[in-house]
Amino acid sequence: MLNAVGREIPEELIAQGWKPYAGAHARDGQYIKKQGPRTRICEKPRESKIVASIREAITACGLKDGMTVSFHHHFRDGDFIVNMVMKEIVALGLKDITIAASSLGAAHDPVAQYIEDGVVTGLQTSGIRGRMGEVVSRGKLKTPAILRSHGGRVRAIEEGDVHIDVAFIGSPTSDEYGNCRAVGGKSDCGVLSYAVVDSEYADKVVVITDTLVPYPNFPASIHGVNVDYVVKVDEIGDPKKIASAAARMTQNPRDLMMAEATAKVMAATPWFKDGFSFQTGAGGPSLAVNRFIEPLMRERGITMSFAIGGIAGPICELQRKGLVGCIVDTQDFDTGAIDDIRANPRHYEISAGEYANPANKGAFVNKLDFVILAALEVDVDFNVNVITGSDGVLRGAPGGHPDTAAGAKCTVIVTPLTRGRMATVCERVVTVTTPGECVDVVVTDYGVAVNPRRQDIVDCLDRAGVAHVSIKELQEKAYALVGRPDPLQWNDKVVAILEARDGTILDVVCEIEPYEM
Amino acid sequence: MLNAVGREIPEELIAQGWKPYAGAHARDGQYIKKQGPRTRICEKPRESKIVASIREAITACGLKDGMTVSFHHHFRDGDFIVNMVMKEIVALGLKDITIAASSLGAAHDPVAQYIEDGVVTGLQTSGIRGRMGEVVSRGKLKTPAILRSHGGRVRAIEEGDVHIDVAFIGSPTSDEYGNCRAVGGKSDCGVLSYAVVDSEYADKVVVITDTLVPYPNFPASIHGVNVDYVVKVDEIGDPKKIASAAARMTQNPRDLMMAEATAKVMAATPWFKDGFSFQTGAGGPSLAVNRFIEPLMRERGITMSFAIGGIAGPICELQRKGLVGCIVDTQDFDTGAIDDIRANPRHYEISAGEYANPANKGAFVNKLDFVILAALEVDVDFNVNVITGSDGVLRGAPGGHPDTAAGAKCTVIVTPLTRGRMATVCERVVTVTTPGECVDVVVTDYGVAVNPRRQDIVDCLDRAGVAHVSIKELQEKAYALVGRPDPLQWNDKVVAILEARDGTILDVVCEIEPYEM
Repeated sequence: MLNAVGREIPEELIAQGWKPYAGAHARDGQYIKKQGPRTRICEKPRESKIVASIREAITACGLKDGMTVSFHHHFRDGDFIVNMVMKEIVALGLKDITIAASSLGAAHDPVAQYIEDGVVTGLQTSGIRGRMGEVVSRGKLKTPAILRSHGGRVRAIEEGDVHIDVAFIGSPTSDEYGNCRAVGGKSDCGVLSYAVVDSEYADKVVVITDTLVPYPNFPASIHGVNVDYVVKVDEIGDPKKIASAAARMTQNPRDLMMAEATAKVMAATPWFKDGFSFQTGAGGPSLAVNRFIEPLMRERGITMSFAIGGIAGPICELQRKGLVGCIVDTQDFDTGAIDDIRANPRHYEISAGEYANPANKGAFVNKLDFVILAALEVDVDFNVNVITGSDGVLRGAPGGHPDTAAGAKCTVIVTPLTRGRMATVCERVVTVTTPGECVDVVVTDYGVAVNPRRQDIVDCLDRAGVAHVSIKELQEKAYALVGRPDPLQWNDKVVAILEARDGTILDVVCEIEPYEM
Repeated sequence: MLNAVGREIPEELIAQGWKPYAGAHARDGQYIKKQGPRTRICEKPRESKIVASIREAITACGLKDGMTVSFHHHFRDGDFIVNMVMKEIVALGLKDITIAASSLGAAHDPVAQYIEDGVVTGLQTSGIRGRMGEVVSRGKLKTPAILRSHGGRVRAIEEGDVHIDVAFIGSPTSDEYGNCRAVGGKSDCGVLSYAVVDSEYADKVVVITDTLVPYPNFPASIHGVNVDYVVKVDEIGDPKKIASAAARMTQNPRDLMMAEATAKVMAATPWFKDGFSFQTGAGGPSLAVNRFIEPLMRERGITMSFAIGGIAGPICELQRKGLVGCIVDTQDFDTGAIDDIRANPRHYEISAGEYANPANKGAFVNKLDFVILAALEVDVDFNVNVITGSDGVLRGAPGGHPDTAAGAKCTVIVTPLTRGRMATVCERVVTVTTPGECVDVVVTDYGVAVNPRRQDIVDCLDRAGVAHVSIKELQEKAYALVGRPDPLQWNDKVVAILEARDGTILDVVCEIEPYEM
């Protein structure tokens, strides 16, 4: 069966109850019943929820074979939590465990071995990279990995598509009742937005911290009323890898050129007016857009109402200059952002659900004017791939990409036309992670293309004298420069399901064969 | 059937599925499944949720005969919301409506008429006073009113005992998406703690404000992701009646004497040490305790970790003097408290669930050392009544009384031995609203009595040389002063059910007959 982005969805998945993606607004307006979370009646006061070790917490939670555990990814490449917990799970002889993380990354290479050993048989995540991406792409995971956007994950948990038995929440600080804050410890990560839904919907919640603070640890990101146990360990992460040093503006001329072109596109649209809202990624060209919109904002005498998303230093800098009303934060990319949220009363933490869940009464992404995003590939239908490399191996993360693209009035993909010998603008992306109907403009170093669905934006650019070409021209130019890519050889076996925000299947990833490690 | 506080629970209620109260910890440790709230999928962005009028919002929500609507009581005697909404409900010809409010008070006299007219046939609230108390006590409400503590209300909603079809949430400020703050408008009320559970569990949520502010209205007390519609009206309340003028310390010598005695009792216990936690009510003697603990704290060189509860100016003052770590707030009694939360970063709003819900993994009341509470009556079993007058008419509110009494290590009731011609310490309270097993000390103007269940406190007072008598002695003294009260004449008809925190029946109130208005 072909879905709304023209991808073949295997009948066996349809038979299992999966539905093919039917368009970005196919479920809009439906009232749904959320899951009823489990909680514990605590009529009898107790002083503390602290237990002596991660192992004791696992045992107290009654974790069993076949259960699902969850993690957040605010510690990014510096995370120690996943490996510490999984090591104990392995030591306890548990098997057939599903990991449902907000994302997984390079810090989690040991999980690849647990997959090969059959301890981990299910994976639900946004990001999948490194060795884990390789073993999953080689078909070593017993069940297909389910890859979701940040908003889609919250929907899936709230709607009951995934049930978390035990959530393990690493926190820079916690009190003895599990009230958590992302600042004030040895390994600050700024916010704990992704873990909020885990704390609310998991049957059991374990907080792991290296810094116990007096009760009440307020204002709390994770509320103790949802926490069963607290464990103190020596170190929850490596601060140097949790946040990069404060992001510096790229000096790469190609990146600067694309950033400048992006700012010009933005300025040509009606949404670039006083009170506009804005999100940009943490990549070089995206971050550089901050630099180029500043003079345009000053020239027009306008300010931004809110900046949102994964936050890095440059947008905080723009706020300090008085050009941004407030910052709405779900993740901190650098020390600049973490330092800012510690002290800036107009820098707010929000939950991932509030940020991007399509199944609530209106997430922040629905109020976005502009989002600037990167891509591994974008095709002539404007479909974007941010998960599979040109070799078909899993090595990315949808993250907030599909959520912000669906919500924003103007979604801009910024990408060089080619990377090495690979065409970034192509005929057909390896995997669709953001549907083309949500992508409005593609900015490359060889020109700008507007999605024909957005004639309004075409007209704006024409009126402002901003040159643009067709996406087909960009793709042909890319192929002229680096050649047409060889088709990938897939097996039939589905190794990963790309779930759309609303729980339908956007695409699947199959096993690559033969595959050389 | 007699329950654990010796009250007869009518068989007809047991037959309906109600359970008799079985003790303060009878359900402790049970894992329960919360209700699954309804929400709306909003994949398609929209700019605003504003509708033109309350009537339009009611219609858009599909409110029908037999449904349940909810309100919060943060505007106290200055509330306009309940009457504005109910007037429209009446005008639309709806009937058989249940009001499920966090509390109701003197501002809501018009509801008494709606009860007599059969428009309102169900009432679930903490407080019931004025004309409404009278008509309910006269048996005019079609079904028994269900009266709950603040924590018990959250439990009831989360556990599904009450299902709210439409929540109407008045807010001092809101943006067009329904993000609400309790400060910044014409009618500030400081916090919106009681309304949080309504926003999370009602099928439809309508925010009513008189002050629209730019999006995002953050940090939000009520989150727009839970809100369906926003209505702007001229005035949501009368600021003069929302908060009293900043509370002044009582000069009444009897009150001061009891406050001093209370402080001495506190100081004699092991919990009066550095880092203790404390809640006091807004009545004269309770507030005056703040004055008397200050010198004792300075003398010992100790500070309070947190003060919690309904907050009034004096505790904020104590914090400004450096004697209180932070203030944890669910309700503001005076302008002193409201002014403080606007500006004080260590004055935190919490939800009513976080404050007092017995069915979560550990509410703030469970970490309380001392709570100082008032009473209409307390009996020789230490049972407290705060709901019915000596004439048996409903005119009070359990509020946070049963919750804090259950949680605190040392629960002190402060009350004059007599009020007018009525004995406050009596043989058997008219209605049990807080079970005696949760009440530790009674301080009166004629002496202090300790619950014999608390031999540890008896020993402390003896060691410290704090005089105390038996509760029986106090009761006899009271009767000697004002005489034994005449027994009340009740009909069999149950007009109100006093629900314990955990959902069981603590007591019932029957129709008073003959009753003269």
